[in-house]
Formats: sequence, structure tokens, C-alpha cells
Amino acid sequence: MTAQSESKTIPNAAPDAATEKNPSTTTLQRPTLLQRIVASGQNPLPALRQVADEDLPELANQLRQATIDAVSVTGGHLGAGLGVVELTLALHHVFDTPHDRLIWDVGHQCYPHKILTGRADRIKTLRQGGGLSGFTRRAESEFDPFGAGHSSTSISAALGMAVAHELQGKTSRHIAVIGDGAMSAGMAYEAMNNAGAMQAKLIVILNDNDMSIARPVGAMSHYLSRITSSDSYRHLRQVAKDVLSYLPSRVSRLAHQAEEYARGLVAGGTLFEEMGFYYIGPLDGHNFDHLMPVLRNIRDSDEPGPVLLHVVTRKGHGYPPAEQSADKYHGVSKFDVETGTQQTSKPKAPSFTSIFGLALIAEAERDPAIIAITAAMPGGTGVGEFAARFPDRAFDVGIAEQHAVTFAAGLACEGMKPFVAIYSTFLQRAYDQIVHDVAIQSLPVRFAIDRAGMVGADGATHAGSFDIAFLACLPNFVVMAAADEAELIHMVATSLAINDRPSAFRYPRGEGFGVALPERGEVLPIGRGRMVRQAAMSQAAVTQAAHSGAAKKLALLSFGARLYECLKAAAELEKIGIAVSVADARFAKPLDHDLVAQLADQHDLLITIEEGSIGGFAAQVMQFLTQSGRMDRGLAVRNMFFPDIFVEHDSPSHQYDQVGLTARDIIRLAQITLGSGS
Amino acid sequence: MTAQSESKTIPNAAPDAATEKNPSTTTLQRPTLLQRIVASGQNPLPALRQVADEDLPELANQLRQATIDAVSVTGGHLGAGLGVVELTLALHHVFDTPHDRLIWDVGHQCYPHKILTGRADRIKTLRQGGGLSGFTRRAESEFDPFGAGHSSTSISAALGMAVAHELQGKTSRHIAVIGDGAMSAGMAYEAMNNAGAMQAKLIVILNDNDMSIARPVGAMSHYLSRITSSDSYRHLRQVAKDVLSYLPSRVSRLAHQAEEYARGLVAGGTLFEEMGFYYIGPLDGHNFDHLMPVLRNIRDSDEPGPVLLHVVTRKGHGYPPAEQSADKYHGVSKFDVETGTQQTSKPKAPSFTSIFGLALIAEAERDPAIIAITAAMPGGTGVGEFAARFPDRAFDVGIAEQHAVTFAAGLACEGMKPFVAIYSTFLQRAYDQIVHDVAIQSLPVRFAIDRAGMVGADGATHAGSFDIAFLACLPNFVVMAAADEAELIHMVATSLAINDRPSAFRYPRGEGFGVALPERGEVLPIGRGRMVRQAAMSQAAVTQAAHSGAAKKLALLSFGARLYECLKAAAELEKIGIAVSVADARFAKPLDHDLVAQLADQHDLLITIEEGSIGGFAAQVMQFLTQSGRMDRGLAVRNMFFPDIFVEHDSPSHQYDQVGLTARDIIRLAQITLGSGS
Repeated sequence: MTAQSESKTIPNAAPDAATEKNPSTTTLQRPTLLQRIVASGQNPLPALRQVADEDLPELANQLRQATIDAVSVTGGHLGAGLGVVELTLALHHVFDTPHDRLIWDVGHQCYPHKILTGRADRIKTLRQGGGLSGFTRRAESEFDPFGAGHSSTSISAALGMAVAHELQGKTSRHIAVIGDGAMSAGMAYEAMNNAGAMQAKLIVILNDNDMSIARPVGAMSHYLSRITSSDSYRHLRQVAKDVLSYLPSRVSRLAHQAEEYARGLVAGGTLFEEMGFYYIGPLDGHNFDHLMPVLRNIRDSDEPGPVLLHVVTRKGHGYPPAEQSADKYHGVSKFDVETGTQQTSKPKAPSFTSIFGLALIAEAERDPAIIAITAAMPGGTGVGEFAARFPDRAFDVGIAEQHAVTFAAGLACEGMKPFVAIYSTFLQRAYDQIVHDVAIQSLPVRFAIDRAGMVGADGATHAGSFDIAFLACLPNFVVMAAADEAELIHMVATSLAINDRPSAFRYPRGEGFGVALPERGEVLPIGRGRMVRQAAMSQAAVTQAAHSGAAKKLALLSFGARLYECLKAAAELEKIGIAVSVADARFAKPLDHDLVAQLADQHDLLITIEEGSIGGFAAQVMQFLTQSGRMDRGLAVRNMFFPDIFVEHDSPSHQYDQVGLTARDIIRLAQITLGSGS
Repeated sequence: MTAQSESKTIPNAAPDAATEKNPSTTTLQRPTLLQRIVASGQNPLPALRQVADEDLPELANQLRQATIDAVSVTGGHLGAGLGVVELTLALHHVFDTPHDRLIWDVGHQCYPHKILTGRADRIKTLRQGGGLSGFTRRAESEFDPFGAGHSSTSISAALGMAVAHELQGKTSRHIAVIGDGAMSAGMAYEAMNNAGAMQAKLIVILNDNDMSIARPVGAMSHYLSRITSSDSYRHLRQVAKDVLSYLPSRVSRLAHQAEEYARGLVAGGTLFEEMGFYYIGPLDGHNFDHLMPVLRNIRDSDEPGPVLLHVVTRKGHGYPPAEQSADKYHGVSKFDVETGTQQTSKPKAPSFTSIFGLALIAEAERDPAIIAITAAMPGGTGVGEFAARFPDRAFDVGIAEQHAVTFAAGLACEGMKPFVAIYSTFLQRAYDQIVHDVAIQSLPVRFAIDRAGMVGADGATHAGSFDIAFLACLPNFVVMAAADEAELIHMVATSLAINDRPSAFRYPRGEGFGVALPERGEVLPIGRGRMVRQAAMSQAAVTQAAHSGAAKKLALLSFGARLYECLKAAAELEKIGIAVSVADARFAKPLDHDLVAQLADQHDLLITIEEGSIGGFAAQVMQFLTQSGRMDRGLAVRNMFFPDIFVEHDSPSHQYDQVGLTARDIIRLAQITLGSGS
């Protein structure tokens, strides 16, 4: 059935306003095939599967435009989704999703997939509070069989599903779509190594766009470039259909091996063949004439064992502003569809990330031993700026956090001073290396932990919640959190000065508070916090306190950037007759015992606050207070940290409301506790 | 200079008693070359380097015998060391260690290396308290440039060192020796991917013995087998010297590439070539005629970029009892050198590991959805037994903990009930997968965490210290610890019944307590502990209490296997007039609030105890106590957990003495606190 014949049965939808205002997309002037498909029900895929192959390019244009429209109003990941528009259509057309499991690695390329799988009406709520997630999410749709946000998990998950179905006697197919950047992670290799040996029926689609977020690094990336730049590839693109006649089901095992070898020689897939995969490719991932027959052939093949289909795509494909941008619009804010101009609200202050980058550069000007390491996030971590200034002393190891940390340990062994800049959430990938290679050996590796705490639209998968707990339990570790960007500069200097053991400093995502910046970072005294505000009642407060009968003293002890919420709360509380001291712990470990003792002994209530989970800073404080016997005689303490939930995507301020770590929450807790306490 | 001429300057050492009693080693009947070398000073390597190539086989025999002798009295890792005797000699002979950095992956094959590098006199203290570590250790020797205990870290560390030296203008060479089993870990791939692209001068020696602990799994292992079983390899072994004439320095870049390709075709190293390594091999790792010229050629080559030398060895080589054993004497207890018979003290009770294996088999007989997963530890985890009974439902994924966990997540998505059995220390490798793929999606993956707490002779690198902290901070997670082997059986059943979220249960290394075992595990009420002993004073105790003026009540709340120390302490404390209640929390999360409240409210002192770090069970208890306002009015609480140190190898009981978690420590803390408190 062709699209033409379908149009008789699917009612025309009204033209989308957003698509009309884009004159460059001339094919979108009338009600579209896409609109009819997505309007066909909760599961629009039966309608999609009736579209003739020759109408798919038109549909791809429409899906691309719908993706652009959505992201133009929500912001989010754009380039990755645009690169897989054709692939998304082809996969859903050929395979029987959701019965067949389609797993998008990382998931940020899934917007076209979401539009096609019953979520078109909500696509403009992407990444907004209460709206669609910016990643695949099991709870959101049966078409999302596995949630992702971190890269390189898809092959493992798909293999697990394939094995489950085999044991259950089910016939689902299992397709993992993974980018070339994600292939630098060891986890993808572990999964391929396992799948290749198990002969599981698994389809891995290597989406090779020569980009992850930045340009990918590593030998695997070079290898893929060699394949795709070879004469044989350019030739092969023309003869893709001929290749199909070689596909497995009709060849004997011996012939199969010989052909494998020959194909490896021609097209270069030997590495994957040697890992036990049947390699097909590279194919042009934007060309349905190539994609559709190959995917159908793979679908219908009876051969056991995993298949790797290598498709070449262009990130941002089909949207000139994205294609021309250096980062291919990997992640964008809201933008004007016609010009591609992104709305960038003027920041009130430089970001913590850029402050870190500048501070590290400043130190590195004076100390040639400083090295900066990032795992595929040069822009996100500030290491990119460092690399521009000191190209020999900056290392982007790719999505390879485990290696990044032990590589840093090796550098530290030889007297270099490595700073490993990894987001809190991704540092989880390197936990064993932190424990085993760094902490046990007490090597002076410095961890610059960006995106600590709530991160906003990226949601639960990217929240930096656990690093205080998982680092502060490690012997030898110094664990700091920056209350503001000036503190961050001091902590870079402090970490640099700690040359006999590991240290870490965490700081939040986004803009700083606009505080005055020091010319140069000071080395902070290790294990010492600072009093920021001494409890002392204004005359008005004294009067009011006398009137209300209350004369309570509260201590707020902050670890990290909630300090300003504490100060806000303090100002409010003073008005109702509660005198408040506010301190910045700076160090969760070693903890400033004198400071904690002073706060505990001289106030009626001590509240600790941190942007992380249970088991972190609070655990350190409570251990000191119990151990020193202070709790025995009665001491009102309350610990504020993240509650026992994963917090969905929303604005950071809404997220902090939700987790109850705002000035208002502090005030409420203080009032309730002091009202009912002692 | 030959060994003969050396014997004039190096005094004969007395024959080693242990070597004499082994009549099978006829070459060791008189004072040996090895003894003269190791007696030559703190750094015996200059003497080694004067040994002529033709005398190296004799020296190898002596070094092999010395290794066997040492392990026969200490127990430890034997097979791995025996397999690299020739390689160890060849590397130290050819390279200028310690100026050149030699990094042994995992490190458990380093006993011959320790004998040669100034530690021969202490070799019989291996793994004993205060003695040599069973792994490489930076603090122990300058010849150990990187400590290891977990596998697959060596390439990353060596690359870090190589880069450091390049930046410093130093000329050291960097050699990582890594086993084929360790190659299944993603971390090794990440490092190769990075090294291959960086063109760092790095020498990776792939020690291919077709064994890690069990037989290795995965496509990489199959690939290596294909190389080494090929005709071309068998031929190549005969012509190893011919190959040398092809080595890089004398060939142009183009010829070099052509030759690479040809060599890949012949010998099969294409996979490594494609990762950017210059591949040489496979060579017979027990044949000095092959090893020495190739190593010298590699040493002297000026070509940039990493080299991978593939050597084939046999684990346990040269010691018939090891060669004939299935596990090649990977880890042994003390043994008789002549017969190879290991001293196995009759266990008082079955091990926790075997109880887990049996309990899981029992459940799996009834529930076909149960799957067991191990990461290269079928024997160590009890999954081997499960695999024998249910071969289709057991998966050994190799040293690939990250993949293991996400593979399990995939299985859980499809309704299977996976149990991932990984030691506490190795679970650190999969932390992000636990957080991101399991916990956020609330998938019912079960974690069976063996070797929780102190582990004895393997020391700090293998201690299971942090899992309570790093798991109990995760929303959705159920975290249990087994007080004894009967509890373990219940926890297997409980974990099986928890089908809406992840759960974990931890248990110690070694024998159980010999308690009566239930016929079948009961599903424990989630989040409920149990009172094991109610505080009630014997008549004698009452009398004594009245006499001493004390009438105090103590509550001990245990999480895990310290319960029996609590009961011991309780019995002692009762005698001195302190009534003691003892409870087993069973769950760190969800915590039994009623139980904790009862203990806190009805006793003068509450002591918690757990076999782990700060931030775990104690943090959960303290949060409840502060939150509920109980601390405000005065409540003596003390938390006993691991102190802030890494604990070296020793017997577990000495280690628990050191960390202060014995009955005696409980008694002391109770006395001090109740004496001085309220």
C-alpha cells in the first residue's frame, strides 16, 4: 500500500503552524503523512508500516521538521536526533516494535522515536517538569524497553533481553543502536565480547557519525574513519544492494567464513568479525534504498549470532544551522527555527564550569606539572579551554571514565598533578578505580566534580547525588564542596596543594552567584570550615523575641552551594526572633571538629545541609557528635539532604523545592524543631 | 660475563633446605645461581643482567623452585607466578628496571618478581600479617611502580606514566604485563583505545595462558585461541628469529603498513593492529631463545607508538601438580612440595559461598526464572555449582562487572529473576550500572555480595568495606546483611520475593558459624529486624549491679555477622551488671524504625555495629533517630564501623582486632560510655 492510497483512509490533519513558518521546507506545505500517522492511535506504527518505501524520504523530512520544531521550543538534544531520522523510520518500519526491542544507546537521539511512538502530542513538553523525558524511559512507553542517559549500556541490556527471550521461547528481535563515541567505553566492549562469544541473536547498529558530543577520540574512532574513508566504502555505497546477495542464510559455513574474510579485507569490519559479530557495512544511514533492504535481510536471516550493522550518518543532518555548527547542535537551548539562533539568556555570572577552567589555567601557568583530563566532555568540564592553552597537558580520553582515573593515577605516580574533571554522575563509572588505584595508594589525583546536586532538565540519570557518600567513606580522601565560585577558585588551589593523597571538590551545574572573584586562589586550611554569620539578634528581633517568648539560637552548617539558602533563611528567621549562625563546612572530610563543636555547643539547634544523598556530609557530622558524647546530653540536630527518591527532570529550582532544600524548607524545619524541641 | 665467571665473585649461599627435599628438581642440588644473585644486594638486578642467555633456563628452574617453596609455606597465588618465571627473568634482564617501569596486572603473578627484586629474604612472609603483600605494592618496593589487586588496570597506569615521562623529557620504558583473562574487562579496552590513538611509547605484554582464574570467556578469548592454534603460529614459533628482521625501525611507513597487514593475515594480530598497536607474536613465553631477542628488539626500537607482544604461557608451568590441576593452582593453601597435596583444615561449617550456591539452586528448582551471573568467579561465588545444575541459566561474563550488571538489568526487564554474584570489592566496578541501569529503573536485580567486610590475606585491595554506604544511599534499594548462614538462606528467598525493585544481601568470606540450617529459606518481612536477646539481668547480675551501684541497660544493634560478637559481649557484660539486649537489623534499608525506637527508648545506650565503612547502616539509624527527635532529649548512641584506614593483609580475626569490632571492643565501649554517660 502506498502513501497515496493511505491518504484515503487517514483523515488529513490541520497543518502544523510551526512547520508552515519555515519556508525552506517546501515539502511541508500541506497536511502531512507524518501527521496522519501519528494521529492514527496510541500506537501509530501499524500506519507507518503501510507507508511505501518510496514515500519514506518525504516522511523523513516531516519527522525531521517535527523534531526541529519541538526542540526549538523546549531546548534539548537536537543533532543526535536529526542524524537518526531515517534510521528511526527504517527500524520501526522493518521491525515489529515494541514486540521487537529497540534500544537507543544514551537515549538522547530518541526524539524522532518518541514522535513516532505515541508521544507526538506531548513532544513539546520534552525535558519540561511533568513532561516527556529527554531520554528513553521505561515508565513512559512500552516502546522504550530500556531507559538510558549514560552511554554504552545498550548492548548489555539488549543481550540480557535476548537471552531472557531465548529462555522463554519467545521470538522477539533485539536491536541496540549505539554511536561511535559510545564505543570508546569499556562497557560496550565487555558486552560485545560477551555477545560475540554467546552467539546470541542480537542486532547492533553502530551509528557512526564521527561525533559523540565533541569529536570522538581513540583508536576505535580512527579505525572507523579508516573504514568509511576507504575507496572500498565509497564504492560499496553504490553497490549496497549487491552486497545483500552475500548475506548469511544462503551460504555454507565455510563459504561464510571465506566471505567474511574477504569482506573484512574490502570494507574493513575485521575487528568486529574478530569479536564474533557478523559485520555489515558501512551503509549510508540517510539512504532508504540502502537501509531498508539490508534491515529486512537482517530481520529475516536465520543465522545465529550477533550482527553489527555499521551505518554512517551525519549529526544534525538536514538542518543547515546544525550541520554548520561545530557541535552539530548536540545540546541546544530554545532557538529560532529559521535562523537557528539560540536564545541565550544573558548569564548573571560566569558558570562554575568556566570558573573552574580559568582557575585551573591560572594555576597551570605557574605549575607545569598540572594535567587536565576529561572523558569526552571538554566543553562541559572546562577542560576544552585548558586544552586550547596547554594542548600537551590536556587529555580527552573519550567516554572512558575508568581509564581516565587510572591514567591519572599513573601520572600522579610520576609526580604530575592530574585534575580529573568528570561530572558527579559519570564519576560513578570510575568508582573502583577511585578506590583501588587512587585511594588505596594514596595518590594525589584531584577530582573536579561538576554537576554536583540537581542538574535540571537532564533529570535523574544525570543528577549528582551520591558522590559525597561514595567518596567520604574512603580513607585518605579529602572531600570539599564549593559554596560559590570564589570558593571554587580556592579549592582548585587547595587541591593542587594536597600532594600526598587524593582530593575532590564538587560544585553545581550552572551560573555562579556573581560573587567577587579573588585574583588568585588561596590554599584553604585543610579540614577547616568558616563562620559566615554569627548568631546575633537585631534590636527588632530581640523585641520580637521577648514578645513571643522565644529566644532561640540556631546554627546552620552548609556543605556546598546551599550556603546562600542558609543565609536567606537566616535573615528571615532573625525577623521572628531566632538568632542564626551560618557556617560553611568547606570540607566533609576531614571534618572541622572545632567548628561543629562550637555550633553544637552554643546553639539550640544545629541543622546540616548538603546537595547530596544520605551517608555523606551528615554522616561525618553525626559520627563526630555521637563519638564526642554530645548527643548523650541532648542535642537537637537535623540533617537536610536529598530524600530517598530519584528526582525527575525539571528546572533546578523546582527540583530543590521538591527535595526540600530551599530557604523556606530550612525556615520551616527550624520553626517546627525549635517550637517543639527542648 | 657468564654465570660461571660470576660464581667467582658472588659467594656461594647455603643450599635452601626446601629445595633439597624435592628430588624431582635435579638441577637444584648445589648452591644456586639464583641464591648468588639475590644475595648480591638490595637490588640484585645488576647481577641478573650479567647472566648469559644460555644460563637463563637454569636460573628459571631455580626461581620456579623458590616460588614453589615460598607458596608451599605461605599459601597464596601459585599458578600465575609459575607461568611467568621465564618472562619475569627476561623482562628484568632486558629492561632497566626500576628505571624502566614494569607493571604486573592484578599483581598476583609477582612472587618471582619479588624474589628477584630485593625481597627474597622475606618471600616466606607473603600474605602473612606484617609480611609481604600478595600483590604488587608501591609502599613495598621501588620495583612495584603500581599496586594492583583488581585486574585490567595496568595499561592505563603504564600509559599515565609514559605520558608523564614524555612531558618530563625522561626516557623510561613502560611495560604492562596483562593476562588474557584481564583483557575481557572494558577498562583494558579503554586503555588500549586511548594508547593506540595517542601513539604513546608503551609496551603491552599479553600473557596468554588461556586461563584467568577459571577458563576465560568471551570473544576476545576465542580470538586469541584462534591465533595460537593456527598453523601459522605453530610455524611461527620455529621462525621467531626470522620475524625480527621485519621489525619497525628499518622499514618505511608504507612498507610498514603493508607488512602489518601481511603479518595480521599470517599470525592474526589484526585486532590489535586495528586498535593502533604494533602486534608481535605469538611467542612461546617459556622459551628464552624466542623471548630475549624479541624483547631486546622492542627495547631498542625507535618507532613511536604502542607495541603489543603476545606471549603464550602455561599457568602452573614446570610444577606437575599445578599443571595437572584444573585451576592450575590459582590460589592454594599451604602444601607439600613433593606431592602438591594442599593442607586443608577441616572446616567447622560450610562456607557462606557454598550455602549461597546451594540456596540459590534450591530456589531455582522451583522457579525457572532464576538466573545466576558471575564475572569470572564461578568457584568463588558458588555460581559454578549453580551452572553445573542449570547450565542454561548461569552466565559467566568474564571480568566484566559493568556488563554483568546491565545484562542482568536486561534480563529483569523481561521478567527473569537475575542474581548477580559479585564480591563486594569488585562490585565497585559496576557502581554506575547499579545506579543508572538498575536503581533508577527500579529493576528487580538481586545482588549477592560475597566477601563483605574484612577478607584476610588478600588485604586492602579485596576488602568489602564500602558496599553498605554506596548501596544504601540509592533510592529503591533494599540492603540486607546476613548474620549467619541460616539468615543467608532466608535472604536468598527474600531477595527472590522482591520483584519490584533491586535488592542486595551481603555476607562475609569464609566459614559459617555452624548454625542449624532451615530446610527452606523463608521470605523475611521487608524492613523488619529481630530481637535476638532481651535485656534481663540474671540474679547474679542483679546482685552485682546492686553492689556496684550500676543498673544500666545496653542495646546492641548489629547489621551482619558481628551479631555473634554482640552476643559474646552481652554475656560478658551481664556478668558485670549491665543488662544487654541484642538485635539483628537484617535490613539497613528499609530500616526497622520500630525496632530502633524500642532499642533507643528502653535502654541507656544504643550501640550499632556493622562490617563496613562510615555512611552505611549507622547513617540510616542516625537519620531516623535525629529525625524522630530522639536525640534532642539526650540519647547515648555509639556507632561501630570500620575506622578511616585501609587495613593490610592479615588473618581476618587480627583485622577485626585492628578495626576494633570484636566483643572486647564492644565491652570496652559500653563500659566507657555507660560509666561516663548520663
